[in-house]
Amino acid sequence: MPKTIEVKQSVFADNNALAEKNRSLLDQHGIVALNVMASPGAGKTTLILATAEALALRLRCGVIEGDVAGDLDARRVEAAGFSAVQINTGGSCHLRAGMVERALSELPLPELDLLFIENVGNLVCPAGVRLGEHLCVVISSTPEGDDKPTKYPAAFRGADAVIVSKWDVAQYVGFDMGRYESALRRISSAVPLFRLSAKTGEGMQEWLDWLVARVQEL
Amino acid sequence: MPKTIEVKQSVFADNNALAEKNRSLLDQHGIVALNVMASPGAGKTTLILATAEALALRLRCGVIEGDVAGDLDARRVEAAGFSAVQINTGGSCHLRAGMVERALSELPLPELDLLFIENVGNLVCPAGVRLGEHLCVVISSTPEGDDKPTKYPAAFRGADAVIVSKWDVAQYVGFDMGRYESALRRISSAVPLFRLSAKTGEGMQEWLDWLVARVQEL
Repeated sequence: MPKTIEVKQSVFADNNALAEKNRSLLDQHGIVALNVMASPGAGKTTLILATAEALALRLRCGVIEGDVAGDLDARRVEAAGFSAVQINTGGSCHLRAGMVERALSELPLPELDLLFIENVGNLVCPAGVRLGEHLCVVISSTPEGDDKPTKYPAAFRGADAVIVSKWDVAQYVGFDMGRYESALRRISSAVPLFRLSAKTGEGMQEWLDWLVARVQEL
Repeated sequence: MPKTIEVKQSVFADNNALAEKNRSLLDQHGIVALNVMASPGAGKTTLILATAEALALRLRCGVIEGDVAGDLDARRVEAAGFSAVQINTGGSCHLRAGMVERALSELPLPELDLLFIENVGNLVCPAGVRLGEHLCVVISSTPEGDDKPTKYPAAFRGADAVIVSKWDVAQYVGFDMGRYESALRRISSAVPLFRLSAKTGEGMQEWLDWLVARVQEL
């Protein structure tokens, strides 16, 4: 059973200082952390698992799962053989550094190289709330439509990489990659953009190559 | 061009009192208002437009569009021939009653029977924030997966109706209606549940019949 952390309001003090503290702890252990942000149901857990599995021979991966309620995602990650901690935010709409601090204390840090922090499904509130991560990755799935960067600019503005997920169903949902990319470029002219399907594997290699290169740099 | 309202923080005082005031104003004009909540890209605007068009001979519909940024949705609604006001929340993750109060002052209330209030795309924060609406409708689209009621219980707990949208792509995204329904029933045992595709029209009639019956009751 994955560990579940119930969050009390008193944990919410001084987010940025705690984020710095988390970052120092991660650096001390040589762990690179990714803050993964997306709408509900964009495929965050599926992509994290596919990435961790593809990199398993090169990098030891762990996952912090943030959800308003339940531990469905942490169970799924643990079942795949990776270290996982579930954070239940108890209604809060995004993770905060204090929640991640507690989750880090439950993880076997000396045994990890790469840590995915899956934020609460929400394209508004997690933007700009630092957790101590090295990289912010925003996923938006093709069924959500090609206008998401225009409607939720803050999340995209702060991203180190943007991933268009569920590429395998793009044709069924009328997703237009040209429109998406031009909307994204008005928000962020240079952010790396990947399109992929974690289900079929299409496009995964470019994302994995980029991620491994960043982990080696950091 | 649809009207766009830029929200200042000072509007945020005493939400419930303002919601009551909105409700009185709506009642005075015999307007039934729906608060429509969903994740980003669940198809809120598409369903609102399909509903307004299907009911056009029986009910005069207007729309308040809530977005963090942009007026894409209000332009789309106006282009279809309906009265629309865009609220830009300026970063805020949900509508509040004060924002709706200002939007109501921009709408031709004597000419409306049914008002859709499309909340910001967010399955967490709008829950429980009253706007003066008569009915709360939660949409969750098949590509988001069949676990949404478990992960975002507050939104579903307060719903007067739940709609599973994008039914036309259910088969491509592995959506299991049985799993969804049993997750929903653990949160709300009796809420009316509709599955439909606003694109193909499948399932629309049941939703329209329910909505018209509620409008006649109210």
